[in-house]
Amino acid sequence: MRILGIDPGTARMGYGIVEDAGAGRERAVAYGCLETPSDIRTELRLQSLYRGLIELLERYRPDALAVEELFFGRNVTTAIHVGQARGVVLLAAADRGVPVREFTPMQVKMAVTGYGRADKTQVQRMVRALLGLRETPKPDDVADALAVALAALHSESLTARLGGLS
Amino acid sequence: MRILGIDPGTARMGYGIVEDAGAGRERAVAYGCLETPSDIRTELRLQSLYRGLIELLERYRPDALAVEELFFGRNVTTAIHVGQARGVVLLAAADRGVPVREFTPMQVKMAVTGYGRADKTQVQRMVRALLGLRETPKPDDVADALAVALAALHSESLTARLGGLS
Repeated sequence: MRILGIDPGTARMGYGIVEDAGAGRERAVAYGCLETPSDIRTELRLQSLYRGLIELLERYRPDALAVEELFFGRNVTTAIHVGQARGVVLLAAADRGVPVREFTPMQVKMAVTGYGRADKTQVQRMVRALLGLRETPKPDDVADALAVALAALHSESLTARLGGLS
Repeated sequence: MRILGIDPGTARMGYGIVEDAGAGRERAVAYGCLETPSDIRTELRLQSLYRGLIELLERYRPDALAVEELFFGRNVTTAIHVGQARGVVLLAAADRGVPVREFTPMQVKMAVTGYGRADKTQVQRMVRALLGLRETPKPDDVADALAVALAALHSESLTARLGGLS
């Protein structure tokens, strides 16, 4: 099972690919950011992000794409811009037939730290520990993308184990 | 000069194509809604909208696509969803090389009614009058799409006239 986690944004879109490493462990296959220059028009930035996402989907062939479901606590203008980037993410997944898994921020925190109100630093520390990384992935967008990918991976393996019991 | 105006939404996306009809008049070439069923996943709805937009761009070959720039007065969750649909609109325009023109709601009202604080009914009445339509296009998404298309058409013809003076 391999998951591509995405933290949507127009200037910078974090991505992280994680997979089962056996024995209940997981590993990071790749992670980083898709970045777009601020001096080109929004539609060209979105087009560049779409193409970058398609490349990731084709290169890493994830079983699912994971993204946070809701967007809290910022203003309407920010939400529009995150929404635009998120729309392109969902479209890329649909175009490559990759199922989308959505998680609330609280579900991501629960899955990664066992605590739904964990702060950003705790989440980053656990992402690093779970994936056996020497350093916390930077910028935050990358750590967030890995966190939502881990949440999806945990959820899928739980589903698989429950399926095995029934 | 032919403009495709879009009022973005996931459940329903209004569109309106308007063009110069000579002698300072304009006409509606086509208008309507792209609709998506509520019982399919968001990414498939966005994919269906993207395909519908590409069909409109290919069938009507507009010189520009017009869309409202900002999104006021509703909540963050609504803004995310409108943003997702808007991202797909911008991507479709970029993919077909059609320039995007953005207008604030106030600019649209100014262009259509001459008054930046006109209410919805006044805008709809003017859209109907300017385009010589027998009835006000329904639902509101269609009238809004025609209004932003008219704003773009007025703006382009003004630019053309000013260019002619220089």
